[in-house]
Amino acid sequence: MTGKPGLPLAGLPLTGLKVVELGHYIAGPFATRLLADLGAEVIKVEPPDGDPIRGWGSRHNGHPVWFSIHGRNKLSVTLDLKSEQGRARMRGLVARADALVENFRPGFLERIGLGPAVLHGINPRLVIARVSGFGQDGPYRDKPAFGSIGEAMGGLRHLTATPGVTDHPPPRCGVSISDDLAGMYAALAVTAACWDIKGNPEAKGRIIDVDLVGAVFSLMEGMLPEYGLTGAVRQPAGSAILTAAPTNTYLCADGKWLCIGGNSDPIFKRLCDAIGNPAMGADPRFADNRGRCAHMAEIDAAIGRWTRTLPAAKAEAVLEAADIPCSRLYDMRDCAEDPHFRARQTVMEVQDPLIGPLLHPAAPFRFDGISPPDMVRWTGPALGAHNDQVFKDLLGETQDG
Amino acid sequence: MTGKPGLPLAGLPLTGLKVVELGHYIAGPFATRLLADLGAEVIKVEPPDGDPIRGWGSRHNGHPVWFSIHGRNKLSVTLDLKSEQGRARMRGLVARADALVENFRPGFLERIGLGPAVLHGINPRLVIARVSGFGQDGPYRDKPAFGSIGEAMGGLRHLTATPGVTDHPPPRCGVSISDDLAGMYAALAVTAACWDIKGNPEAKGRIIDVDLVGAVFSLMEGMLPEYGLTGAVRQPAGSAILTAAPTNTYLCADGKWLCIGGNSDPIFKRLCDAIGNPAMGADPRFADNRGRCAHMAEIDAAIGRWTRTLPAAKAEAVLEAADIPCSRLYDMRDCAEDPHFRARQTVMEVQDPLIGPLLHPAAPFRFDGISPPDMVRWTGPALGAHNDQVFKDLLGETQDG
Repeated sequence: MTGKPGLPLAGLPLTGLKVVELGHYIAGPFATRLLADLGAEVIKVEPPDGDPIRGWGSRHNGHPVWFSIHGRNKLSVTLDLKSEQGRARMRGLVARADALVENFRPGFLERIGLGPAVLHGINPRLVIARVSGFGQDGPYRDKPAFGSIGEAMGGLRHLTATPGVTDHPPPRCGVSISDDLAGMYAALAVTAACWDIKGNPEAKGRIIDVDLVGAVFSLMEGMLPEYGLTGAVRQPAGSAILTAAPTNTYLCADGKWLCIGGNSDPIFKRLCDAIGNPAMGADPRFADNRGRCAHMAEIDAAIGRWTRTLPAAKAEAVLEAADIPCSRLYDMRDCAEDPHFRARQTVMEVQDPLIGPLLHPAAPFRFDGISPPDMVRWTGPALGAHNDQVFKDLLGETQDG
Repeated sequence: MTGKPGLPLAGLPLTGLKVVELGHYIAGPFATRLLADLGAEVIKVEPPDGDPIRGWGSRHNGHPVWFSIHGRNKLSVTLDLKSEQGRARMRGLVARADALVENFRPGFLERIGLGPAVLHGINPRLVIARVSGFGQDGPYRDKPAFGSIGEAMGGLRHLTATPGVTDHPPPRCGVSISDDLAGMYAALAVTAACWDIKGNPEAKGRIIDVDLVGAVFSLMEGMLPEYGLTGAVRQPAGSAILTAAPTNTYLCADGKWLCIGGNSDPIFKRLCDAIGNPAMGADPRFADNRGRCAHMAEIDAAIGRWTRTLPAAKAEAVLEAADIPCSRLYDMRDCAEDPHFRARQTVMEVQDPLIGPLLHPAAPFRFDGISPPDMVRWTGPALGAHNDQVFKDLLGETQDG
């Protein structure tokens, strides 16, 4: 941590980019969190009672722990968009901004008199990113959406089942994946649009439309054209991959799971040697991926018989010595205590003035000469912590409105 | 589809940005696919026998179906980096490029004489993005990694289990999520670095480092600081969310699954009314989220009793009429045939000159005035399809080397 709020770290790529966030919960705020990690000045506009995400998850010293990360590198101001003073301040922020990110339900901004036409009237060069469940048009536009709906309708949740093993509902990915994906795409589209505008005095702003369903659906690989051409509907494959073998997750003697990727010809042979089964590596039925896929169950059973003889850490060490991709399924303790995570500062200790010392994840992109701690300029601020700084210093208000 | 290869569509935000891809499989090529969808000129450099991803999945008319999407809007050239002619062409491409994206194992580019120092010697303003399993430093740098390892070590795979229901291995998300996430972050970081350089004659290039493990780990919400502060290790919750209720996936009379998000106070009351159980909505034990979480099993059971009386489509219609977030778990047929996907052209028919007409997903970001089909300028090209165009027209070679 190197800066104080409002002072960008020289050297971050988006230093100087001005972004206003009208976001709540995850998708919009995650987009601006990424832009803020990259150096942008992000002003998070919250209602007087705050983004409800501040009420999620555990608290420490009375402050929400997740928000230390989710709100980091942002300025927090409070505005009542229902009041004329609030809307006037909002217009002032928009006038000086390069981009605005919002994730209200479609139509809300228009209803309160802050639709894109109004915003572009104030600032014709503004890049406006709108994140929503189903997008700004189409028959489902006005339907309510949570992240889980984006996973369900985008095709992801159909794929997490373990067919033939359980009739329990397919699990979540365990995180708010559809919000995260939509936020990442919004951040990318905003940055691209700002690249286009930069240095071009003729350029106009844009309206960007990102939806959770489409963000999830974008990851469906070749499944859509395969369905269209042949009618084949991809079915879930549990912990395996139907078109590559062996790649699976195997139970070890201590009850832990070991993920192994042995699905190339040379790796498969090394794997068979490492588990003391060179005959399997020499079996002509298993000489190529097609043959191994046809006998996936037999190969997986043989690997599983070996993993069940060793604790996961020991089995992992044996395979690593043979240069075979593998990993135990890390839980948060494994991640936090792992020497690689620590050496790369993917896990780092940060001083939060509200919470105290705590662990933050690094930004998911590194730039030469800038360390991960340098990219955490400050932690998620208290609600409205920057009202004075923004309204007086940036907007030039001379008295409380 | 509007353009022919090499002719950018005016209006896309990254029109004019020149990117070279030294990628293979998924993560690097997905980063450049996103940049290409945004309008960048992407030259995909492949070995003479092609990116091995061309061999993945089903084929139609002899051509790989997924690559129609995965390679769209890119130029394909073949180079033998082991030959001096190949390296000379590579230097020529780098000299005129704004950015390069690579996803070899760390150290490979240096070993063939094309490390960042050499590349910056040719073009000091080049933005170089390096995508790898574990990153460019740290003790695991040289370990082999597949996407599944990124999921396992980044903490995601630990969370997809269904505890107490099955002792089967936690399933995959069903797609190459860690590669996709790393590719998205690389695309964002490249675009941000190019924004920084644009119009600044003093600016230098950068080296960006994105790893699959860190990309997955970036989505772990508040789990890391919670572990650090209290030692609590987040455990999998199957299809539920431990901190919100009711939000789950429920079995319907026709064996299909319905995902329902009823986890706000007003939605919960509407949900109880809609399923004919207003008494549950009025039960003071369930008045707030905390109470509902404490009685999650009881509430989920009541909802599940109702869903099992109706086919999924009928139950969905009942809940939609009450403005309750819900969706069947869409498989690829559901996505492809859905009227919303069609109206928004999230699913669209595209003419692939190699394969014939087929379905493509829209780019996951829309810009006002540009339709999704306009963003598919051309489909994934045949191997080396643009050798002449690139080597002769762009690099100015006057004869075959």
